[in-house]
Amino acid sequence: MNASRVQATVIGDSDAEPEALTAAEAVGAILARLGVTVVTGGRGGIMEAASKGAAEAGGLTVGVLPFEDSSKANSWCKVVIPTGLGHARNYVNILCGDFIIVIGGGAGTLSEMCFAWIQNKPIFALKAFGGYAQEFAGKQLDSLRPDVVISCENLRELEKKIGDWLHLDNILN
Amino acid sequence: MNASRVQATVIGDSDAEPEALTAAEAVGAILARLGVTVVTGGRGGIMEAASKGAAEAGGLTVGVLPFEDSSKANSWCKVVIPTGLGHARNYVNILCGDFIIVIGGGAGTLSEMCFAWIQNKPIFALKAFGGYAQEFAGKQLDSLRPDVVISCENLRELEKKIGDWLHLDNILN
Amino acid sequence: MNASRVQATVIGDSDAEPEALTAAEAVGAILARLGVTVVTGGRGGIMEAASKGAAEAGGLTVGVLPFEDSSKANSWCKVVIPTGLGHARNYVNILCGDFIIVIGGGAGTLSEMCFAWIQNKPIFALKAFGGYAQEFAGKQLDSLRPDVVISCENLRELEKKIGDWLHLDNILN
Amino acid sequence: MNASRVQATVIGDSDAEPEALTAAEAVGAILARLGVTVVTGGRGGIMEAASKGAAEAGGLTVGVLPFEDSSKANSWCKVVIPTGLGHARNYVNILCGDFIIVIGGGAGTLSEMCFAWIQNKPIFALKAFGGYAQEFAGKQLDSLRPDVVISCENLRELEKKIGDWLHLDNILN
Repeated sequence: MNASRVQATVIGDSDAEPEALTAAEAVGAILARLGVTVVTGGRGGIMEAASKGAAEAGGLTVGVLPFEDSSKANSWCKVVIPTGLGHARNYVNILCGDFIIVIGGGAGTLSEMCFAWIQNKPIFALKAFGGYAQEFAGKQLDSLRPDVVISCENLRELEKKIGDWLHLDNILN
Repeated sequence: MNASRVQATVIGDSDAEPEALTAAEAVGAILARLGVTVVTGGRGGIMEAASKGAAEAGGLTVGVLPFEDSSKANSWCKVVIPTGLGHARNYVNILCGDFIIVIGGGAGTLSEMCFAWIQNKPIFALKAFGGYAQEFAGKQLDSLRPDVVISCENLRELEKKIGDWLHLDNILN
Repeated sequence: MNASRVQATVIGDSDAEPEALTAAEAVGAILARLGVTVVTGGRGGIMEAASKGAAEAGGLTVGVLPFEDSSKANSWCKVVIPTGLGHARNYVNILCGDFIIVIGGGAGTLSEMCFAWIQNKPIFALKAFGGYAQEFAGKQLDSLRPDVVISCENLRELEKKIGDWLHLDNILN
Repeated sequence: MNASRVQATVIGDSDAEPEALTAAEAVGAILARLGVTVVTGGRGGIMEAASKGAAEAGGLTVGVLPFEDSSKANSWCKVVIPTGLGHARNYVNILCGDFIIVIGGGAGTLSEMCFAWIQNKPIFALKAFGGYAQEFAGKQLDSLRPDVVISCENLRELEKKIGDWLHLDNILN
């Protein structure tokens, strides 16, 4: 992996509770401080909060939209990819991440977790905000992969686990 | 809906148990007898079995491949759509179905169930063969839809429920 | 190639002159009589005419739509693939054809000719109806392929050249 | 248009002459100095040269790859979008640009010019390096748009015309 362009995809609902949004903003800031580019689906809710947190912390943000019109991205995305693919953009969104962070999440987010699983991407799930992040934290999506969705009880644990993954397993090797 | 071109997408693993394959073949035959075109992902396992069952019963079969090369479709697909989209073809696969039938299923199948849910497609789940079909039978994937994945204990119940859906709710109206 | 599922993609404008539409209908009928499944973009104009000609001659027809909604296909498509990909469906449309037939054509059709060229598909161009079919008949799109777009002065020449390609080079080998 | 995120897509062959590569590098630098993010297809040749020119001038660069593997991008792309769409990524690549710059170009580039035309994007063609840029400079791709591909004899004219478009027509309004 080219250390100067590590990318993480943050996934979660376009409609989320205030506590989940606050966490997503903190996740964006954590990634920015680690020098990781933050990719999201470019819309509201978790996507916007993660982008805002990253942008305000000086990080680079990318929004991979389902639409053809880039003006529909939230204003915190520095780069906009208007795919025009509809929900098939969920697959592109996941391919963009060297690892994935999931907060809450309904059916759309779950489709992205499935793609991340199939593509052997590390998936970090913040447990505290319900949804499929909580449901699959510490579990497999199927038996084709030996590992599990990485369960993170809180932001501190998330930051620690991402840092470990970045430094021990991938970048320094 | 144009009665002459009702299409159903049958989803499930490319690697499945003999009992599940036998059921998939029967599902294909049921759909063919109802005059419904059978769409699958065009590969092996449940996809091939459903296509075989439909083709042998005189039905029309379509395989929506992730690959660019149509020769990789199973031999029971009369029409082959080599999308070249990788797993993003899961979305196209689901868009092709007026309704969806799921048998067993791991992460790939679950991504398709999510897309079917988001697109408001009726989802009929055969419960007897484990996987995500069983896990979500009778449940919602999230709260954005009021209904549930339609649980079918066996082939007879599946045939009855599909017949009801086709005749009462859609085609005769 | 599996002889029972040879597919040809017919490309051309959704808005075309009556003479071109009549020719497209005849092309559809020719393909149907050869046992070739006719794939188009599923919309009006050349696409609808080719589908109509094929369907009326007893052939199988497939429409690969840019939209998510299958009801937007013309009524002559027996199978509808609502890709939801926007114009990116042009690529899928071309991948579906073992060979390509082009009648007239503006920028959208030209994008499909480019993809057919890149994918090494034989391209048969009916010269009599202007557009990019006429402009590139007998020419290369670039120097990466040694052959040319196959020029056909009229329907008889088209039928002869397709027949030769089907029987001599591909199906009987 | 959000002035802080104007994006231009630079298109041209992955295999190009040294003079064309030098020009592409200069184009990248021009765009970077204008504060415009440079999007390319992420591969070699014109794409790599434009990315290099932009990156060395302090600009932001994005590579929209046909592959699923981000490591295949050239090293000058700060952001990598591994679409996994094959040549269908050409459509996404074009959607990413508020305007398009074309240098030389064969069939792949021409497919992108077609999509840019269909999407009503301004297309600036550098005439001096042959290919479809030269062939269509000052011309229409079809009659559905009243304007033409904007012909630029040299880099100075290109810079002037892009500057005029950015300032007079779009950003200040």
